[in-house]
Amino acid sequence: MEERPASESSAVLVKWMGITDANSAGFIHGGTVMKLCDEAAGLAAVRHSHSRVVTAAVDRMTFLNPVFVGELLTLNARVNAVWRTSMEVGVRVVAEDPRTGDSRHTGSAYFTMVAIDEEGRPIPVADVRIETEDEERRAREAQVRRANRLAERDELRAGRGWS
Amino acid sequence: MEERPASESSAVLVKWMGITDANSAGFIHGGTVMKLCDEAAGLAAVRHSHSRVVTAAVDRMTFLNPVFVGELLTLNARVNAVWRTSMEVGVRVVAEDPRTGDSRHTGSAYFTMVAIDEEGRPIPVADVRIETEDEERRAREAQVRRANRLAERDELRAGRGWS
Amino acid sequence: MEERPASESSAVLVKWMGITDANSAGFIHGGTVMKLCDEAAGLAAVRHSHSRVVTAAVDRMTFLNPVFVGELLTLNARVNAVWRTSMEVGVRVVAEDPRTGDSRHTGSAYFTMVAIDEEGRPIPVADVRIETEDEERRAREAQVRRANRLAERDELRAGRGWS
Amino acid sequence: MEERPASESSAVLVKWMGITDANSAGFIHGGTVMKLCDEAAGLAAVRHSHSRVVTAAVDRMTFLNPVFVGELLTLNARVNAVWRTSMEVGVRVVAEDPRTGDSRHTGSAYFTMVAIDEEGRPIPVADVRIETEDEERRAREAQVRRANRLAERDELRAGRGWS
Amino acid sequence: MEERPASESSAVLVKWMGITDANSAGFIHGGTVMKLCDEAAGLAAVRHSHSRVVTAAVDRMTFLNPVFVGELLTLNARVNAVWRTSMEVGVRVVAEDPRTGDSRHTGSAYFTMVAIDEEGRPIPVADVRIETEDEERRAREAQVRRANRLAERDELRAGRGWS
Amino acid sequence: MEERPASESSAVLVKWMGITDANSAGFIHGGTVMKLCDEAAGLAAVRHSHSRVVTAAVDRMTFLNPVFVGELLTLNARVNAVWRTSMEVGVRVVAEDPRTGDSRHTGSAYFTMVAIDEEGRPIPVADVRIETEDEERRAREAQVRRANRLAERDELRAGRGWS
Repeated sequence: MEERPASESSAVLVKWMGITDANSAGFIHGGTVMKLCDEAAGLAAVRHSHSRVVTAAVDRMTFLNPVFVGELLTLNARVNAVWRTSMEVGVRVVAEDPRTGDSRHTGSAYFTMVAIDEEGRPIPVADVRIETEDEERRAREAQVRRANRLAERDELRAGRGWS
Repeated sequence: MEERPASESSAVLVKWMGITDANSAGFIHGGTVMKLCDEAAGLAAVRHSHSRVVTAAVDRMTFLNPVFVGELLTLNARVNAVWRTSMEVGVRVVAEDPRTGDSRHTGSAYFTMVAIDEEGRPIPVADVRIETEDEERRAREAQVRRANRLAERDELRAGRGWS
Repeated sequence: MEERPASESSAVLVKWMGITDANSAGFIHGGTVMKLCDEAAGLAAVRHSHSRVVTAAVDRMTFLNPVFVGELLTLNARVNAVWRTSMEVGVRVVAEDPRTGDSRHTGSAYFTMVAIDEEGRPIPVADVRIETEDEERRAREAQVRRANRLAERDELRAGRGWS
Repeated sequence: MEERPASESSAVLVKWMGITDANSAGFIHGGTVMKLCDEAAGLAAVRHSHSRVVTAAVDRMTFLNPVFVGELLTLNARVNAVWRTSMEVGVRVVAEDPRTGDSRHTGSAYFTMVAIDEEGRPIPVADVRIETEDEERRAREAQVRRANRLAERDELRAGRGWS
Repeated sequence: MEERPASESSAVLVKWMGITDANSAGFIHGGTVMKLCDEAAGLAAVRHSHSRVVTAAVDRMTFLNPVFVGELLTLNARVNAVWRTSMEVGVRVVAEDPRTGDSRHTGSAYFTMVAIDEEGRPIPVADVRIETEDEERRAREAQVRRANRLAERDELRAGRGWS
Repeated sequence: MEERPASESSAVLVKWMGITDANSAGFIHGGTVMKLCDEAAGLAAVRHSHSRVVTAAVDRMTFLNPVFVGELLTLNARVNAVWRTSMEVGVRVVAEDPRTGDSRHTGSAYFTMVAIDEEGRPIPVADVRIETEDEERRAREAQVRRANRLAERDELRAGRGWS
């Protein structure tokens, strides 16, 4: 299976936040942002794998700043690393006030997406070709997150007396 | 009031089309695309005018190709011309199949947006600074559409025996 | 193919505007009204053609007055003219405050709808039978709009050095 | 407080049923129809009372026939009778296939609506002026339904040993 | 066909009320509550019948108290009685303010649901086994409501000169 | 500030999955489940803190099995641990086929929620009183997740040459 450049998985969604995305105080619901992150991550994973995908896990999602009604939300997603049938997709969330043009980084998320066939069974994914230093750092960090996730799982299982 | 470059009004919305955007045959509703065009046009007008805006008219909206569930819709909007309190905003609609990366131009629209204050009264808008040949052509075409629209109005009124 | 009276295509949609249709200032989004106009136009075209239809173009859509949350929106649509596989449908939008019964004309729109078969290919449409003076005027105005649209297209193409 | 003719409360909502209104078999959800009936009843009550209203009860709602995706749903509502601060509103639901023009009565509902002031307290409602035999029959039937409802409440309370 | 205990049909839906469920004064629409009641009733009927179901009628639905944005709505539904292909399902609605934990009974509804096969034809339903005094009372009251409904229908028909 | 028992924060949401929650293959979107998890976590945090809350992070969210249209989704959330102004809330997701009653654990998520005042500033939260062995294990695991998250952050920063 051929490699594909990480940069080709790059996916963007842009949505203008309305009152149906917010609570009565005008703060956008965390769940609205999560749903858009999941969509952006799925899009990057489809671009890379050329197949259907499902969300297997959210490894880290951080909300740095609130988002408000009337702001424009931009979600940039790309595949950071590939393991046989799964991919780590990173999503960066930026909010902008279109009247002033001011924008700020409001959150980040790391998803594990799995490529599936029409029956829903996992299928192998093309590897990512790393071409820049930034991509190299992202791939390395994806390995750290994965190693920590697996170590944490073992640590918690041991604490439950399972191992 | 200072001029602002046409390019600074540039606005993009990107949405992944789902089954709630389509009829039961999987075709995206024209109305769904219109609503997104209106949003993109509003966004470009807000970026240019730094104020609230309302939609005054859709001058031409053309649907060249159907759009399907699972495709990514990208709407590019920018201010083409300004007349005291109103602006023509052009919107270009592109659909893409994210599995293959194939994309096609599926429609265009031209909106007249009006800048308003908090009470809803029209307010003057900064002029657009034209910097490229493309922008010059767009501004000229906006004048053609406007002249035709006014001429058509007069022609129809005369036909009704109003003039 | 038999003719059908223009009056038989008459279609009405009526919706009570809620807060999900509006911005935070209580103004109904232009896009919400457009989407309803498209639906009403589609309904009139289905009534006339007895087939599936798609939206090919919006020729003119004018917003005369803002619409507010709590108002009742009535959309009246009917086929004005037929050209082989396409139809012009006119839509008239009226808003009413149900507490007082006061209503006002808030906008109009002219759509070109195309009749299609199950595979999405254009199919011929029955002609409209014109029976009143009003219908005659509407058919004549539809021809004016169509002629202007085609002339404008040629004019713009020439300006781009295409002809 | 002056009387108002029953006919002036007449309210109509018309909505084209889409796939978001239906289950996966294409049947429109009962809950979708109920919600529209409630809206139509509220509209008739607002027209009659010239005030805010709330739904106090649904006395009888009957679904005679299923409704399908692609059909047009028309809800006709009007005030049948008034008791100081409350009104009975009858709603008739008709579904139509716009391709063929065939329509059928698919359900009826009787609501008790209460007029309220800005603080949500019940306020008196103008009486209905009965002008036709149909209106007379409806007003009489509203009294029957109300008497039965109150009798049923007493019967059930007695059965619980409350009286 | 075997009997099934009434308690096994017990179904619960819980939804946090947001601004899209309310009018601009913050009151939850009666129609929103009705739609959720219909869903809860359908769920209880599916649990009991192990088949698809449709709503045939709402016999009584009472709104005792308004519900507000920010409150948690809990709908408890269960089958009270069975007649060959139909069931009465009772639904109890409770609203809770999650900040204080205060909750109150805000409404009740009684639905007639019919079990159907894949073609939409009514099919026989297992009987309910009554096991507690409460269930016995509910079954008895369901019979009272049904008898009254049929008597009312006859009374109204007679008044229209149909019998 | 008084302690409150962990068990009092227990929150449940129950929603029946419809076609608007799914892709065209009938699989429920990961984003739909995330949004409901966020709501359930917010509800548990409100119950515990008696204040407004915002989502600060999702630490781990795992999707074990797909969820399908027609299934009932139950989300159980509770506060596991408290750190001055923030709380870890665990959410357990269970899907059930209401026709058969079969249910399965389909996912888990751990949220960090922050209590805020009306201006959006973090405020102290009452501590959780641990009363059972299960609660003790959950609190311990929350500490492990938090320690790992902070260690991971430091590890990644060091890798970027920030420390």
